[in-house]
Amino acid sequence: MDASRRSRLCPMESNAYSTAGGQEGGKWDIFIRRLRHGDTRVLARAITLVENEAPEAAAILSACFPHTGAALRIGVTGAPGAGKSTLVDRLARHFLDSGQRVGVVAVDPTSPFTGGAILGDRIRFQERLSGSHGDAGFYFRSMATRGSLGGLALATADVALVLEASGKDIILIETVGVGQDEVEIARLADMVLLVLVPGMGDDVQSLKAGVMEIADLFVINKSDREGADRVEQEIRALQSLAQKHAAWTPPILRTTATTGEGIEALAAAVSKMQRWLGEDGRLAQRRAQHWNRRLHAMLRTELMRSARRNGLGENQFSDYARSIAAGRQDPWQLISQLAQQLLTPRDPA
Amino acid sequence: MDASRRSRLCPMESNAYSTAGGQEGGKWDIFIRRLRHGDTRVLARAITLVENEAPEAAAILSACFPHTGAALRIGVTGAPGAGKSTLVDRLARHFLDSGQRVGVVAVDPTSPFTGGAILGDRIRFQERLSGSHGDAGFYFRSMATRGSLGGLALATADVALVLEASGKDIILIETVGVGQDEVEIARLADMVLLVLVPGMGDDVQSLKAGVMEIADLFVINKSDREGADRVEQEIRALQSLAQKHAAWTPPILRTTATTGEGIEALAAAVSKMQRWLGEDGRLAQRRAQHWNRRLHAMLRTELMRSARRNGLGENQFSDYARSIAAGRQDPWQLISQLAQQLLTPRDPA
Repeated sequence: MDASRRSRLCPMESNAYSTAGGQEGGKWDIFIRRLRHGDTRVLARAITLVENEAPEAAAILSACFPHTGAALRIGVTGAPGAGKSTLVDRLARHFLDSGQRVGVVAVDPTSPFTGGAILGDRIRFQERLSGSHGDAGFYFRSMATRGSLGGLALATADVALVLEASGKDIILIETVGVGQDEVEIARLADMVLLVLVPGMGDDVQSLKAGVMEIADLFVINKSDREGADRVEQEIRALQSLAQKHAAWTPPILRTTATTGEGIEALAAAVSKMQRWLGEDGRLAQRRAQHWNRRLHAMLRTELMRSARRNGLGENQFSDYARSIAAGRQDPWQLISQLAQQLLTPRDPA
Repeated sequence: MDASRRSRLCPMESNAYSTAGGQEGGKWDIFIRRLRHGDTRVLARAITLVENEAPEAAAILSACFPHTGAALRIGVTGAPGAGKSTLVDRLARHFLDSGQRVGVVAVDPTSPFTGGAILGDRIRFQERLSGSHGDAGFYFRSMATRGSLGGLALATADVALVLEASGKDIILIETVGVGQDEVEIARLADMVLLVLVPGMGDDVQSLKAGVMEIADLFVINKSDREGADRVEQEIRALQSLAQKHAAWTPPILRTTATTGEGIEALAAAVSKMQRWLGEDGRLAQRRAQHWNRRLHAMLRTELMRSARRNGLGENQFSDYARSIAAGRQDPWQLISQLAQQLLTPRDPA
């Protein structure tokens, strides 16, 4: 393999696992050292570069990778208005009080209309927590849509990885809604809390496909309201249908995040699930599945990026598209030809 | 280029625009001829093969492509419960009565829970319409999730193309919900109707990002209910913010689909928009944009398919994923190496 090409594509290749690199390696070494020593400005900058798919993103992620694997990543999803933000704040505070370092990624694939409000609230919260626990103990980051939604799930996982490398023990990944996009994001966590509220009644059944299935723990928040029993019954009814073969029956917890009621018990349930995941290689298996999905998305992205590098730029795409729209070119024929031109023939049989 | 490889990848390549092909070409010629002569069984089979990404899919789509471009594709989206199905049925009937042939694709990216009910209703509707208008005049197809949701938008566009090649003048593409997935689907149509209902009030503002922007016509259905004026005001308020530069201000129509009230006026608005699209190359430009998005998705899919053909199968992905989850392999390094192995080096500078 051509060495210059190799290093162009992956500058961190020879340095990801060592500190013996040259100038470029040295640059990332210092970066990572400062990141791991709790430098919040370096952390914020690394996340921004990764989130924006900057040219340095792959090198940063590669450099972060050896410092990950020990943290627990918890996905928190559920219908809007279920009180997820408050719940996540309470959980974060609980973990902080027990001496753990916590990172929060809040993902909003919806509208800029709502994004502002959330950010405002949460920055105040972050300041409050940072004040009492020190910079290294807590970090909050809000993310909005990046390109396609598959891209957002990937970006969220990348940001979580950087947070983890910065020394966090717990990463909370919170989504605003509960659609297919949010399911994709939550599935990249080690465990998923699905937050429901009383009054949903039959609506539990109308949750999008795949949502009930990803829940490792059900949380009925605002459980001081009327109808908590009803929601619990609905969940149990669906569980009896769907969870026949599962080795883990997701427990149902009740909380009132605004008062902190039930947070202790929820944290205990999280710990129990964490122990269960640690047994019989379950966590390793789950993470291998995550990486499998992620590798597919990463390869898709990288192949398209390479196609662009090989001259298949946006102008070229536009020309083809115009020609197809005018009926002058067959798109399936074109794609097959482009793929052949781009790919090395290795199996000419 | 190796001829056998070429024909393996795209069997229709030499026959898409001619009838001078060999045995394989002849097969598709007959297929297409029967499709265009209104053979509903051939149409149903073609759609199934395309929807399931059968090996024949690209050949079928290639064969269909020359017979497309004249039909109008109308996307219909909006919140669940807005009465979209009834509205689409009414519109279909209106177009049929005016002598046009109509195809309907109803897409449900949500749950199997709801899919059944919709299918049941609509099959009855299809029988009713088919009975009074003959097989060739109307065709209804329901689709559910295929793989990723990007995949579903692509599959919907493919199915619409086959429907169009079968001789339909109008293709109605109806989505069940109004999330990001549905936006992607609707964006592949020539024009988009966004269906709202009275009582949404402030909720109009909470529609996901990108939904208001894709609307070419707003339909306030169930407009006999209280609150229609309010919804219209909300839409106008948002329009005054967002539509500053648009050459087309989406009109707001009121319907009561259950009684048929307002359908005539809606159809007239659709015709007006169609005429507007026909001017100054607007339709061609819009379709070129659609094909641009679609080409990106098609190339991504084809590159991954080729990667699989080149030995990067699911087992290989699983092995890599396990090794990464165990911290033994750097994923960014791996992806960069895989991409290099797969792609022909053309720019070694």
